[in-house]
Amino acid sequence: MGSKVTIEQVAQHSGVSLATVSRVLNHPELVSSKTAARVNASIRELNYSSVVGQYNSAEFEGGAGLIMVNIPWLDNPFYSEIVRGIRVAARSAGFDVLVSWDVPTASAVNDYCAMLRRCNASGIITLSPLEAETIERIDSTIPLVQCCEVNPEVDVPFVTIDDFAAARIAVEHLVSCGCSRLAIVSGPDTYKYARGRMDGFLSVAKAHGIDIEDGWIVRVPDNSYGLAHSAVCHMLESANAPDGVFACSDTYGAAVISAARRAGLTVPGDLMVVGFDNTDNAIMTTPTLTTVNQPRYRMGYTACNILLERMKGAAAPQSMTMETELVVRESTTRSRA
Amino acid sequence: MGSKVTIEQVAQHSGVSLATVSRVLNHPELVSSKTAARVNASIRELNYSSVVGQYNSAEFEGGAGLIMVNIPWLDNPFYSEIVRGIRVAARSAGFDVLVSWDVPTASAVNDYCAMLRRCNASGIITLSPLEAETIERIDSTIPLVQCCEVNPEVDVPFVTIDDFAAARIAVEHLVSCGCSRLAIVSGPDTYKYARGRMDGFLSVAKAHGIDIEDGWIVRVPDNSYGLAHSAVCHMLESANAPDGVFACSDTYGAAVISAARRAGLTVPGDLMVVGFDNTDNAIMTTPTLTTVNQPRYRMGYTACNILLERMKGAAAPQSMTMETELVVRESTTRSRA
Repeated sequence: MGSKVTIEQVAQHSGVSLATVSRVLNHPELVSSKTAARVNASIRELNYSSVVGQYNSAEFEGGAGLIMVNIPWLDNPFYSEIVRGIRVAARSAGFDVLVSWDVPTASAVNDYCAMLRRCNASGIITLSPLEAETIERIDSTIPLVQCCEVNPEVDVPFVTIDDFAAARIAVEHLVSCGCSRLAIVSGPDTYKYARGRMDGFLSVAKAHGIDIEDGWIVRVPDNSYGLAHSAVCHMLESANAPDGVFACSDTYGAAVISAARRAGLTVPGDLMVVGFDNTDNAIMTTPTLTTVNQPRYRMGYTACNILLERMKGAAAPQSMTMETELVVRESTTRSRA
Repeated sequence: MGSKVTIEQVAQHSGVSLATVSRVLNHPELVSSKTAARVNASIRELNYSSVVGQYNSAEFEGGAGLIMVNIPWLDNPFYSEIVRGIRVAARSAGFDVLVSWDVPTASAVNDYCAMLRRCNASGIITLSPLEAETIERIDSTIPLVQCCEVNPEVDVPFVTIDDFAAARIAVEHLVSCGCSRLAIVSGPDTYKYARGRMDGFLSVAKAHGIDIEDGWIVRVPDNSYGLAHSAVCHMLESANAPDGVFACSDTYGAAVISAARRAGLTVPGDLMVVGFDNTDNAIMTTPTLTTVNQPRYRMGYTACNILLERMKGAAAPQSMTMETELVVRESTTRSRA
């Protein structure tokens, strides 16, 4: 475990008073973010993990510490496989994993950091869409790695996919299947995934000279099946319905299939649908849903290993953009009887 | 984020007194299910998400401590609404909520308690099936409340449903719809829900003089759609297929519907299906799934309030068994064309 780093050593190293170090640790809201960053950098350079390690000595026989996973929605089946990958990597290194279901805002970040400190978290992997200031503030408290959602304004390691390119492949698939009246169902623009997939969708439409009708760009405020279903029912009520829908999640895709059925449209006969994520939802529907597979387990596993490197003090662990894959199923296979 | 919905607004909207709203939120056992339904509908219509959302806003001034929620599977959509209820009750009292995805065994309980101590958890709500020794050991570390899964060998408060009675109503419904060749898809016997629902199923079969064929009692090792699908495909391959399946979760129910389709059987024409839980999975399928509703949000909310009472030192907070309700949908409605 190495010897403990004392608060005096941290104060000396960062060139601030003992009281300031104490404030950073206990009342970060009283300290400027610049000072907090300096003190936290010192804590890390002086071997951060042994500061953390004091909580996990042999007396408890437990893990070496705790890794937090922050997710925006517990009800989204997309996240479980990522957390499974994180758990396996964390446990190999002796760390426990806990899940925090939150999207801390910049104004709530001090409370969030206080919570992380109270529960002695050693590092955090965030899957939530966070503002740059929030990420920096958390990262100055404990090492952070971004997974899936990435804020390009901060220099913090990440594991993600190329949403723009993946969406392009999905929408090109719809066009190659003969769809020319395209619609999209996506999430809030605060999410990188939603922005990237929207841009990919629009770029394919433009390349093929396809105009998108008013009302065929549907944005659902969260990954809710019920809200997506209502919004898509509304869209399909119009006399002139789309013949191809790019749904930015399988949950949305399942909602499109069910709304089409309600509107008396057959899938894939009248309307083709592509989802995203390759969760179980994509095989629960009738017809089954063509979708984009993300290597979720590997994304979680890799994000956790990058975090473990950061916790050990590695200077600049490498970020990763992982491959996706179109999985073609019945919702875009017209030849099916 | 929108403005907060106040308890006064909820009272006004639902046409009941402030005291009644408070009872619905805090002591639903004292309120008729009709009144509770009305108040809960108002909470939702008045923008349920802003009631929840207030805690993400700046007003949340940091927790008084941490409440842990232990769940056996992050990928089971059954749990999210329970955790949502827990979160609202916890945050009203100033507590943060973290989720631990674990089923600690008796041999690992010391490590688990060490983890709870390291992260300064003040109390725990467990939804996992735990041995008596494990529950007692954790409860001697921090106050514990059991939710859904209950171990009858320990004297620790709980919130649950009557699985036996709920299963009986579901299976009687199958029989009243004309089913006489009954099958069941359930989870491992380590779960109270699986034991209770199996007993309910068998008791209805016996009451009607229905013998259960070998191979028509399917036990899936976890709440996995894929494993359930494989097991049910195997069951439906036989020449003599069941005409009614009681699936002990909506995930299993969705797997039965998909396996039936693969086997060339129509639902509900050749085979009727009832699920359990009333999650989104029950409305994603074609046909939609008849299921048993559990008041998941209220179960979580109530379990957390019982825990908060225990944390304040209340001698013996009352356990609760909540009402369930059969929700009839297309999978058992033969008249549908």
